[in-house]
Amino acid sequence: MIEQLRTNLPLWVEASRVHAREGQVAAYIPELAKAPRDALGISIMGRDGTTLTAGDNSLLFTMQSISKVFTLMLALSDNGEEGVFEKVGMEPTGDDFNSMLKLELVEPGKPFNPLINAGAIAVTSLIHGASPAEKSERVLRYFQDIAGGAPLTYNESVFRSESATAHRNRSLAYFLKDNEVLGEEIDVEDVLSVYFQHCSIEINVEQLSRMALVLAFDGTDPITERELIPRRYVQIAKTFMMMCGMYNASGEFAIRAGIPAKSGVSGGILAVVPGQFGIAVVGPALGAKGNSTAGVHLLETLSTAMDWSIL
Amino acid sequence: MIEQLRTNLPLWVEASRVHAREGQVAAYIPELAKAPRDALGISIMGRDGTTLTAGDNSLLFTMQSISKVFTLMLALSDNGEEGVFEKVGMEPTGDDFNSMLKLELVEPGKPFNPLINAGAIAVTSLIHGASPAEKSERVLRYFQDIAGGAPLTYNESVFRSESATAHRNRSLAYFLKDNEVLGEEIDVEDVLSVYFQHCSIEINVEQLSRMALVLAFDGTDPITERELIPRRYVQIAKTFMMMCGMYNASGEFAIRAGIPAKSGVSGGILAVVPGQFGIAVVGPALGAKGNSTAGVHLLETLSTAMDWSIL
Amino acid sequence: MIEQLRTNLPLWVEASRVHAREGQVAAYIPELAKAPRDALGISIMGRDGTTLTAGDNSLLFTMQSISKVFTLMLALSDNGEEGVFEKVGMEPTGDDFNSMLKLELVEPGKPFNPLINAGAIAVTSLIHGASPAEKSERVLRYFQDIAGGAPLTYNESVFRSESATAHRNRSLAYFLKDNEVLGEEIDVEDVLSVYFQHCSIEINVEQLSRMALVLAFDGTDPITERELIPRRYVQIAKTFMMMCGMYNASGEFAIRAGIPAKSGVSGGILAVVPGQFGIAVVGPALGAKGNSTAGVHLLETLSTAMDWSIL
Amino acid sequence: MIEQLRTNLPLWVEASRVHAREGQVAAYIPELAKAPRDALGISIMGRDGTTLTAGDNSLLFTMQSISKVFTLMLALSDNGEEGVFEKVGMEPTGDDFNSMLKLELVEPGKPFNPLINAGAIAVTSLIHGASPAEKSERVLRYFQDIAGGAPLTYNESVFRSESATAHRNRSLAYFLKDNEVLGEEIDVEDVLSVYFQHCSIEINVEQLSRMALVLAFDGTDPITERELIPRRYVQIAKTFMMMCGMYNASGEFAIRAGIPAKSGVSGGILAVVPGQFGIAVVGPALGAKGNSTAGVHLLETLSTAMDWSIL
Repeated sequence: MIEQLRTNLPLWVEASRVHAREGQVAAYIPELAKAPRDALGISIMGRDGTTLTAGDNSLLFTMQSISKVFTLMLALSDNGEEGVFEKVGMEPTGDDFNSMLKLELVEPGKPFNPLINAGAIAVTSLIHGASPAEKSERVLRYFQDIAGGAPLTYNESVFRSESATAHRNRSLAYFLKDNEVLGEEIDVEDVLSVYFQHCSIEINVEQLSRMALVLAFDGTDPITERELIPRRYVQIAKTFMMMCGMYNASGEFAIRAGIPAKSGVSGGILAVVPGQFGIAVVGPALGAKGNSTAGVHLLETLSTAMDWSIL
Repeated sequence: MIEQLRTNLPLWVEASRVHAREGQVAAYIPELAKAPRDALGISIMGRDGTTLTAGDNSLLFTMQSISKVFTLMLALSDNGEEGVFEKVGMEPTGDDFNSMLKLELVEPGKPFNPLINAGAIAVTSLIHGASPAEKSERVLRYFQDIAGGAPLTYNESVFRSESATAHRNRSLAYFLKDNEVLGEEIDVEDVLSVYFQHCSIEINVEQLSRMALVLAFDGTDPITERELIPRRYVQIAKTFMMMCGMYNASGEFAIRAGIPAKSGVSGGILAVVPGQFGIAVVGPALGAKGNSTAGVHLLETLSTAMDWSIL
Repeated sequence: MIEQLRTNLPLWVEASRVHAREGQVAAYIPELAKAPRDALGISIMGRDGTTLTAGDNSLLFTMQSISKVFTLMLALSDNGEEGVFEKVGMEPTGDDFNSMLKLELVEPGKPFNPLINAGAIAVTSLIHGASPAEKSERVLRYFQDIAGGAPLTYNESVFRSESATAHRNRSLAYFLKDNEVLGEEIDVEDVLSVYFQHCSIEINVEQLSRMALVLAFDGTDPITERELIPRRYVQIAKTFMMMCGMYNASGEFAIRAGIPAKSGVSGGILAVVPGQFGIAVVGPALGAKGNSTAGVHLLETLSTAMDWSIL
Repeated sequence: MIEQLRTNLPLWVEASRVHAREGQVAAYIPELAKAPRDALGISIMGRDGTTLTAGDNSLLFTMQSISKVFTLMLALSDNGEEGVFEKVGMEPTGDDFNSMLKLELVEPGKPFNPLINAGAIAVTSLIHGASPAEKSERVLRYFQDIAGGAPLTYNESVFRSESATAHRNRSLAYFLKDNEVLGEEIDVEDVLSVYFQHCSIEINVEQLSRMALVLAFDGTDPITERELIPRRYVQIAKTFMMMCGMYNASGEFAIRAGIPAKSGVSGGILAVVPGQFGIAVVGPALGAKGNSTAGVHLLETLSTAMDWSIL
C-alpha cells in the first residue's frame, strides 16, 4: 500500500494541480492574497513516522479554520463535554461558514457546531487562561505538542491583517454576546484576539500531517507513544470533521472521499485515515465554497484509489 | 373639530390607558425599565400653536427610534437623496427592527430602509461633522430647532446604559462594515456613539408634538413660519413613517389609523395629521412588536373618531 | 391642471417608452410572452368622466395581480374585516411576491398581506359562491360594475396557460392548506381555478382607469354617483396599494411617486390620485421586481410634475 | 461480545423504555396516532443470522422515512450517480425535514440531500417503471429481497391517511416542479403516490434488521451471500445516514452514537454497525426533532457500551 502511494503520489499531485486554475486565492485577508495560486503540496505520515511528501511541501501557511479542530479539543479538556455543548451545538448547518441566519432564526441562538465561525468563536471563549496572552500561549503549546514538539509561531502580519479586517467575525461575536452565548464577563475583543492568533499559527504540511496522525491514532502520537488527547475528544473532533469540516461542501466531500477532514481559507486541509495515516495538503486556490480546489481533488483521488472511505 | 377633541381627549386617554396592562416596559436597556408602566400622556398641537394635552403629559422620555425620522432628514440635507439612498434602501422588510436576515440574504446587503436599526445606523454615519462630538452637537441643535427652540438634553444614564448593552447594534454595525455600507474610513464605535446619543435625547410630549407639527406643515414651523426642513425631505420621512414607522406592525397601524407615525422603545410615538396637527404620545408599556399598547390604542381611537386617515 | 396634462401626456409617454428597453416581457406564462415589448399606453379619467389617453391605449391585457385589489374588497364585503384578517395579515413583507419564507418562519404561517400571491389565494378562498363557477361569475360581475358596466371577459388561453404552469402557486396553496389558512373543506384546485380566472380578466386602460376612478372617489363612481364599494373597504385597499402594491419595489414607488398603485405581471398598473383621478397604464416590459419599467417611469414623471404625492 | 449483548439487552430496553414518556406519538397522519406510546422493541442481527430481540419486537410499523435509504439505492441503480445527483444535492441542511427555505434561498433550488422530504420525493421520481403501479411494485420487490425474501405489504389505511393529509409534501413537490427538479413530463400526484406507498410499507424489527445487515456487509446479504446492492451505492447511503439520517438531530446522534442510522416518523430506526450488525428499533413516541426518544436512548446506550462508533 505504502509503495503504491510512494509511486503514484507525484503523478497524482501534478494531475490535481491543474484544478488550482478553477479556484482563487482568498482575498478577504490582504495578507492571504499573496499566496502562490498554483502551489500544491502534500504530506502523508504513517504510524511509524514514515512520511511521503510531494509537490510544494515546504510552503508555509497559516492554519486558519483548521485550528478550530484543536481548540475544540483543548476547550473540551478545559471544560468537559457538558461545558462545551452548553455553548455550541452538534448539528451541520447547510449555510455559509460565517452565516448568521440560524443565530437569528433558531432558538436559543446557539451556534450550530464548533466548526462554523460563530461556533469556533464560542469555543475559543471557553479556553482557560488568566489573560488573552496566557490563553494564546496555552493554545500554541498545545498545538506544538500535537505537531511533534518543534516550535510553531504566529504569523504576525496575517494576525494583524485578519484582526483589522474581520468585521464579519466581530459582527458574529457581538451577536453571540447578545444571545448570551458569550457571557457578560467576556470581552469580545479579547476573545477575538485569541481566535485570530490561533488562526494565524504558521505551519507546513509535514508538521500538520503529524497533527493529523495523532487524530488517526485516537489522540496518542504513535511515534512517541505519548497520549496527548483523550480518545473521546478526538472522536468528537473527527465526527465534526466528517459532518462539517469542509464548510458547506462537507457532504460532497464525505460522499466522494469519505474521510474526516478540515479545511482552512489559506488552502490547507488536514485529513485523517483512521488507524493508518495523518495527511496534510496545501493548495491556496479556493473554490466557491472555500476549499482548496486542487487539494480536494487530490484527496478524492487518493481516497478512491486507496479505498479509504470509512463507510 | 378642536372642540370635539378637547372634550373627548381625557376620556379617550383613560379608555386607552387600560391597554397598558397588555404590554411590558422595555427591559433590554436597564435604564428604560424604570419607566412607569401605566403612564399615558398625549399632546396635540395645531397650526396656530393651540395645544391639547391629557394624561401624563409631563413625563420625560428618550426619543429612541423616533429620532431616526429626524436624523434621516438631517442626513438628506447633508448628502442629498442620492447620497443617502446609495447606503440605504426604500423598502419595508416585514422582519424585526433589529433583524440581520436581509443583510445576509438580499444582495447587496444594504439595509432595506432608514427606520430599521441597520438603516438608521447607516444614516447616522452620513451626518456631517469633524468628530462624533461635533456630529452629536449638530444633531442636538437640529432637533432643538424643530422642537421650537427650547434646549434639549441627552439623558446620560440612558446613553451609558444603551451603549454598554447594545451588543446587537454593534453586531449590525460590523455587518454593515463587512458589507461596505459603512466605509473603511468609518469607526464603528464613533458611529454608534452618535447613534446612541440621538436615541437618548430626552423630551416630553409637548416638545415632541411641536416636532410633529413641523412635519404636518411640510417642514415649515407654522407658528414661527420658519422653514426648517426642505419639503421634499419631509415628504420622504413621512412616507417611510407610513410604511415602516411602527416596526413590523406598521401595516396594521396604517390600516387602522392611517397616519404617518414613528414609535420608540421608550413608549413614545410621534404622529402627523398632514396640514392639521402634530401629535405626540407616550406610554411605556410595549406590545410584542415594540409599540406602546396604550399609545397605539389612543391614536387609533383618535384617528377613527376624527376621520384622519390619509387614504 | 387638466390642460397641462393634456399637452404633456403624449410627450411624457414617448419619453417613458424608451425605458421599456430595460425590461422583459413576462415569460413564465407562455401566453403573456406574446405581448409587444415596446408598447406603452395610459388613460387618466377625471371626476366628470373626462378621459385623457395616450400611446397604445387600445391594447388589451389581463388584469393579473391588479385583480387582487378588487377581490380583496369583494371578500371584505362577503366576510367583513374580521373574517378576512383572520386569514391574512396586514404587513408588507420585503420578500418576493411568491415567497414562502415567512409562511415557514413566522408563526402562525398566515400570509403577510392580501397582495402577495399567498395572501391573494387566501382572499380568493373567502369569496362567497356555491361553486367555483358561481364565484368566478360573481367576481366578473363585481369587476364589470366597477369598470362602468360594459362586459368584461376572461382570456381563456391565458387562463389555461396560467393554470397549466402555475406550479409555484399550487405549492403556495398547499402550504396554506398545511398551515390551515385554507380549511379542510376547501379544495385547492377549486380555489386556484377562481384565482386564475380573475387574473385572466381582459381589460384596456380606459376601462381600468374607470375602476381606479371609483377608488379615487372612495367607492362611489363619480360619473353615475352610484355607491359601489363601502368607503372603509376602499380605504383598506388603497392603504395596501400604498404599502405593497408594487411588489417589493413598493417602497421605492411610494417615495418617488407617492400614490396608491397596483401592478400586474401583464404590465398593467392601476393608480389612484385620491379625489382627483383614476389612472391606468400598460407597458408589458417588466423590470427585475416585476413592474412595468416604462409604466413606472411614466407614473413617477406624472406624479412629480403634477405634485400628486399624498404625503 | 454477543454474550454481553444477549445478557444486557433486555435490561437496556427497559431502561430506555422510560424515555418514551418524553415523546409523543406522531399525530399528523391520523393512522399513526394509534401506535402504542410506551412500546419499545429491538432486533440485532449478526453476520451468520444470529438474532437478538428484546421488548416489543413483534410490533408492526410502517417504514416511513426509513424507506428513503432504499429508494435512494434503487434510484442509483436505475440512473447512476450522475443521474441522481443532477436532481438532488449531497449536503446536510440544519433545517426541518420538510423545510422549503433552501429551495427558495439557495440556487438552483435543488433539494440539499436525498433524506429530507424534498430530496426523497425527487429521488422517488427517478425510479424506473412504466406507471406508478409498476414503480411501486419494483420498490416492494427490491425491499423484500433486501429484507430476506419474505413478502412485505403496504398498510393501505396508512397510505390513504398519508395521501389525504400530506399537504406539505404536495407543496414541496409543486415547488420542485417549479424549480424544474421534477420535469414537465412528471405528474406530481403520480410521484407522490409512489412516495406514499413506499413510506407505508409495513415491517417488524426483525425484518428491518435484516435490511440493515445487508448495509452492514456492503450490499451483500451475509446469510445467503447474495450480492443485492452495489457496494458503492451502499457506501453513499450509509454516508448520508451518518450525516443526515436522524433529521436535524443527526449531528447529535453522530456525536453520541457514531453509527449510520435512519429514523422514521412511525418510531422506527434502522442502524448499521459496519461489518458486524444490522439493527432495527421501534418506539413510537417521538421527540421534538422527530426521532423515537426511547429508540435513540437505546441505540446510544448500546453504541457506548459496545464501543461501536465508527470514528
